[in-house]
Amino acid sequence: MDLLDLMRRLHVKNSTKIVLLVADGLGGLPLQAGGKTELETAQTPNLDALAARGVLGLSTPVLPGITPGSGPGHLGLFGYDPLQFQIGRGVLEGLGIDFDLGPNDVAIRGNFCTLDAAGNISDRRAGRIASEIGARLCAKLDQIKIPGVEVFVRPVKEYRLVVVFRGAGLGGNVEDTDPQKTGVPPLDPVARDAGSKTTADIARSFLKQAREVLKNDAPANFFTMRGIDKRPHIPTFEEVYGLRAGAIAVYPMYRGLARLVSMQVLDAGQTLDDQCRRLEQSWNDFDFFFMHFKYTDSTGEDGNFAAKVERIEQLDSAIPQIAALKPDVLIVTGDHSTPSKMRSHSWHPVPVLLAADSCRSDACTSFGEAQCLSGGLGQFPAKHLMSLALAHAGRLEKFGA
Amino acid sequence: MDLLDLMRRLHVKNSTKIVLLVADGLGGLPLQAGGKTELETAQTPNLDALAARGVLGLSTPVLPGITPGSGPGHLGLFGYDPLQFQIGRGVLEGLGIDFDLGPNDVAIRGNFCTLDAAGNISDRRAGRIASEIGARLCAKLDQIKIPGVEVFVRPVKEYRLVVVFRGAGLGGNVEDTDPQKTGVPPLDPVARDAGSKTTADIARSFLKQAREVLKNDAPANFFTMRGIDKRPHIPTFEEVYGLRAGAIAVYPMYRGLARLVSMQVLDAGQTLDDQCRRLEQSWNDFDFFFMHFKYTDSTGEDGNFAAKVERIEQLDSAIPQIAALKPDVLIVTGDHSTPSKMRSHSWHPVPVLLAADSCRSDACTSFGEAQCLSGGLGQFPAKHLMSLALAHAGRLEKFGA
Repeated sequence: MDLLDLMRRLHVKNSTKIVLLVADGLGGLPLQAGGKTELETAQTPNLDALAARGVLGLSTPVLPGITPGSGPGHLGLFGYDPLQFQIGRGVLEGLGIDFDLGPNDVAIRGNFCTLDAAGNISDRRAGRIASEIGARLCAKLDQIKIPGVEVFVRPVKEYRLVVVFRGAGLGGNVEDTDPQKTGVPPLDPVARDAGSKTTADIARSFLKQAREVLKNDAPANFFTMRGIDKRPHIPTFEEVYGLRAGAIAVYPMYRGLARLVSMQVLDAGQTLDDQCRRLEQSWNDFDFFFMHFKYTDSTGEDGNFAAKVERIEQLDSAIPQIAALKPDVLIVTGDHSTPSKMRSHSWHPVPVLLAADSCRSDACTSFGEAQCLSGGLGQFPAKHLMSLALAHAGRLEKFGA
Repeated sequence: MDLLDLMRRLHVKNSTKIVLLVADGLGGLPLQAGGKTELETAQTPNLDALAARGVLGLSTPVLPGITPGSGPGHLGLFGYDPLQFQIGRGVLEGLGIDFDLGPNDVAIRGNFCTLDAAGNISDRRAGRIASEIGARLCAKLDQIKIPGVEVFVRPVKEYRLVVVFRGAGLGGNVEDTDPQKTGVPPLDPVARDAGSKTTADIARSFLKQAREVLKNDAPANFFTMRGIDKRPHIPTFEEVYGLRAGAIAVYPMYRGLARLVSMQVLDAGQTLDDQCRRLEQSWNDFDFFFMHFKYTDSTGEDGNFAAKVERIEQLDSAIPQIAALKPDVLIVTGDHSTPSKMRSHSWHPVPVLLAADSCRSDACTSFGEAQCLSGGLGQFPAKHLMSLALAHAGRLEKFGA
C-alpha cells in the first residue's frame, strides 16, 4: 500500500484547521564555518516561541544529496513522492504564468532563437530580446490555427514563451526540437510513443507556420520547443486527505503547483499582510491553508545573506496574525534550502517547525538548523509531513486494530 | 525512477576530486557498557580536525539489524542497493584471489572433501589440508578439459578452491553439490532454470573427471561445489556517475569489488604509505578515488581491541597526506562495523565523516560513534552516500525545475 492509499484509507473529517506556511528556500548555510545560518542569525521571537511549544526537525525534499526545483519541493510538502509524480518543464512554465492547464493540454516551453540564411541556429536565445518584443511575437503566433486543436501562445519573459495545444487524446511524449547547440538546424518534433504521434504532427505543422510568421522578425525569427508534456495525473488533496484546501500564494508558479493537486487558489494580493488578511477572511471556508512566502528564496538566490535574514524577520512578524486564528496545526518550513552562500537551491535538509497541542515537545527553544537537528521530528522525508499534520489535527484513524 | 537512473540523469562533469577512504569494519563497541569504542579510544587528531570542519553521521549498510559481508558493504558505499545487486559466493571467492571474472564466466566456490569407500562424505573439509596440498591438487584439476568451455581451477586457502567455467551462454543458476552434512554422497549439480542446463552438464562432467583425478589423494579425494554464479551485471561507475574512478586497495577482494563496478584498479603496493603515494601519483588521472584499509576489520575479527585502536591511529596519521591534495570531498567511513568485542562483522551503524566546503557543519568536534549520532547527516542508508558526495562536489544538477 503506498502512502497516498494509506491516507485515503485512514483520513477522517473534523473541524480542525491546518496551516502550512512555506518560506521558500528557508534552509541556509553559515557564511563562515562555525557561524550561523540566515535563520539562526535572524531575530525571530515569534517563531522561537512556537518552536518552544512545538516540535522541530529536518526534512529531506527528495533524497539525500538531491537538490529539488520548486515543483518537486512542493509536491513533497504536499505528500506526493516527487520521484513518482514528475512535472515536465513545459507544464511548470505554464503554471508559472498562471495558465490554467487542463487534462487535455500539452504544454511546451519555447525559446525564441535566431536562424541564419542556411536555416541553422546562430543564437539559441535570439539575443535575449526584450520582454515586450517577445510578447508582440507571441501575439502573432497566437493567431496560428491548427484544425482540430486549440492553440495558445503566451509570453513568459524575454526569449521564453509557452505554447499549449488543447485537444482530446493528445499524448505528451515528444522530443525537444532544441538541439542544444548552434550551427545546426532545429530538430524535428519526434513522438516517443504511438499515442503522441498526433501531437508531434501538430507541433510540426505549427512550427512550419511559425517559421513563415516570424521570417522577417530577426533576431527572433524562429523558436525551439522543450519539455513537451501534459500535466501529470495527481490525485486531489480532497480525495487523498479529505481536506478542503486553499492556497494563498503571490507568485503564479506556486498557485500553479497548488492547482496541480486541486487546491482552490485564493486571491492573495501582493504582500504578506494581504495574505494574512486573506487567511482570516477565508478561515471558515477551508480545512487546510497553504501559504507561500517567496522572498526567503529570491534573496538566497541573490546571494544576499542580510536580505534573507531580513525577510525571515518579516515572516516572523506575521506569525502572531496567523497564530491568533488558533490553527490546530501550524507548520512553518521550506520546500528546499537556498543558502545565500551558494546563490542557488541546495540539497541540505530543510528546517521544519510543527506546533500543535499534541506535540511531544523537544528541548528546542528557537527555530534554526542546529536546533532542528536535535528536534523531536528527527530527519525525515518531506513527503511524510502531511501525515504528521493530519495526525496532529486528529484527522487520521488508527491503522489496523 | 530508481536511484541509479536518477544519478544517470542528474550527474554533470567538472574538475572536482572525491576521495572515499574506507576503513574496513570501522564501527565498534565498547568492551564494557558505558565505555568507549575503538574509534573513540584512538587518538585521532587529524580525523577530529576533519570532523570539526565537516559533517558526521551514521550509515546503515543494508537495513537495520542486517550484518553485511564485504560485498554488500562495499556495493552500498558505491551507491548500489545491496539487496538489488547480489553477488554469489563463487564470484566473491574469485574476486578474492584477484581472478579477473568476465561476463561469460561461471564461478564456483569449491571445498575439498573426503569420500569414504561407499562414496559418502566423511569430512566436508578434507581434514583442513595445508594450502600447499590444496594448490597442488588444484594444479591437477586445472588440467581437466571440457569440450566447448575453458576451465580454470585456482587454490584459495587450505581446502578452499575456485573453479571457473568460461563460455558463451552459460547460465549461473545451479544448485550446490555440498549436502552440508556427512554420511551422504555429494549432490548432483542441478540446473534451477533452462538457461543453466548446459552449465549443470559441464559441472557434472567436470566432477566425474575430478573424481578420477583425485581418487588417490585422500583425505582430499573429491570436492563439493557451492555458490555457483555469474558476476552480476552492475552498471559502471562512469555510466552512472560520470566519474573516472580509481581503486587503491591492497587486498584482492576489494580490488575485485572495485572491478565489479568498473573502477580502474591501480597498483596499491603493500602499505598505507604506498597507497597514499599512489593517490598522489594518480591525482590528475581520476575524479574519484576509493582507498581501502583492511586492518581495522582484521584486528576487529581477531578480537584485539588494542590492535584495532592502533590501526585507527595509523589511519589517522595518513590523513594529512590525503588532505594535502585538497580533495573537494573527503569521506572517511567503513563498509560495516566489526566490534572487536564480537570478533565479527556486525549490523551496528557505521561512522561517516564527510568534509567539504559546502557542509552545513554540526557541533561535532571528534570522530566517534557517539558524536556521529548527533551529526548533521543523521542516520541514513549507505547507498545514499554517493549522491551526497556528488552533491558536495557540485556534480549533480537540480532535480525538476
